[in-house]
Amino acid sequence: MPGTVGAAMRHACTGGKRLRAFLVLEGARLHGIATGTALWPAAAIEAMHAYSLVHDDLPAMDDDDLRRGQPTVHIAWDEATAILAGDALQALAYELAARPEAGSEATRAALALSLAQAAGARGMVLGQALDIAAETAETPLTLDEITTLQQGKTGALFEWSAMAGPRMADADPAPMREYARAFGLAFQIADDILDIEGDEKATGKRVGKDGAAGKATFVSLLGLETARARAAELANAACAALDGYGPDADNLRAAARFAISRRT
Amino acid sequence: MPGTVGAAMRHACTGGKRLRAFLVLEGARLHGIATGTALWPAAAIEAMHAYSLVHDDLPAMDDDDLRRGQPTVHIAWDEATAILAGDALQALAYELAARPEAGSEATRAALALSLAQAAGARGMVLGQALDIAAETAETPLTLDEITTLQQGKTGALFEWSAMAGPRMADADPAPMREYARAFGLAFQIADDILDIEGDEKATGKRVGKDGAAGKATFVSLLGLETARARAAELANAACAALDGYGPDADNLRAAARFAISRRT
Repeated sequence: MPGTVGAAMRHACTGGKRLRAFLVLEGARLHGIATGTALWPAAAIEAMHAYSLVHDDLPAMDDDDLRRGQPTVHIAWDEATAILAGDALQALAYELAARPEAGSEATRAALALSLAQAAGARGMVLGQALDIAAETAETPLTLDEITTLQQGKTGALFEWSAMAGPRMADADPAPMREYARAFGLAFQIADDILDIEGDEKATGKRVGKDGAAGKATFVSLLGLETARARAAELANAACAALDGYGPDADNLRAAARFAISRRT
Repeated sequence: MPGTVGAAMRHACTGGKRLRAFLVLEGARLHGIATGTALWPAAAIEAMHAYSLVHDDLPAMDDDDLRRGQPTVHIAWDEATAILAGDALQALAYELAARPEAGSEATRAALALSLAQAAGARGMVLGQALDIAAETAETPLTLDEITTLQQGKTGALFEWSAMAGPRMADADPAPMREYARAFGLAFQIADDILDIEGDEKATGKRVGKDGAAGKATFVSLLGLETARARAAELANAACAALDGYGPDADNLRAAARFAISRRT
């Protein structure tokens, strides 16, 4: 089992779009941080995201058997391995963000602190808790409640990723935060659309689960066309937040547009 | 449920001996660190320990219903709440260690990094994984294997706690590490003895489980009397490691002696 936990951690980190790492790397490049330095927080956020998926897929949580086109960790191994692999991936995230290679002591203290706040009970875990609670709630969530849920579940790590570059450069993180906030919501609306229109082979995960569970989504609340329009507006707002960076930020703009056109 | 996760986190942090916090505070005092500063890493390590208990008690892990005289989190609430409360407590541990109140940027980066290494796949999670694997192993563990298991499961956080003070003062952590290593093993041997001789009311947890599960323990391998003698030797070694500190370290020496005489 000990070697097993390492294997399960690697399994959980395989595949995926690496979108959060991309946000770290592009945000760092925009602020003059070397890629070799930025790779450490980029790896950190992918470890954090992987942990959240492993625990979210557990039977007591979302109970999913397919993720990134592979069996989930508790299916490929067992629940104890999935709990421990997730726990160790969370620890690994802080280790990667705090290692000397990630920058000055001030940078690493700031990265570790902000990462803990993004991942914890007021960030990602809050989003997960709202999501689980929604499954058994008597009334479906409102648009405001779903927005809060998603800002925790997806938004907190998106914002941390986008803000890592300015944090490492001691620059104003506000434009990147605004970009990430709009991008994260656009991404999540697109996710809800994919849950209706996507196919499992392309997305690598089960689709149609939210609708089948009667969960309120952006699509169920707004309707498909309005949801699509809202996602496009948000993608535009994300791009506009980057105006100050000029054409250097074109990769980030392309990512925001990709978020709403993706099939996976 | 979101408010529930906060309540479950508080429940998990209630009670206990606060031994790891004590090690941080005493080690800090010995190195001239103000208590108000040391309280942050002391709180951090208690959050980390509480998370490990919540996850260790889950049905897929040790499946315990009683902890610190209270129902475990998944009994008082449910498994999803226990998974999320544990996850959020782990994040809280890094947040507390990396907050500005915990010291200089250099100190906080070092505390966060070493905490992640102590908690992760080469530290506490390794110990947990070895422990779970031992339950289904065909042959009982050897003394060396149990020692490795305990150095991960208990030792890693003990060592981090004892070394926090010298780390904060930029002093040599070797004597405190040696103290913690001997203390941790003595503590664990005493735990195995309590699992045979203790009572549930005093310990606040189920006793006799390891023996009933046929798990190898220090007691099953060494016999009760040899185990008791080994614990006493280790407590003496722990005290001796503190020689350089003189009578200032008497509280830490008393703790090592308490470890082998405790009834809880």
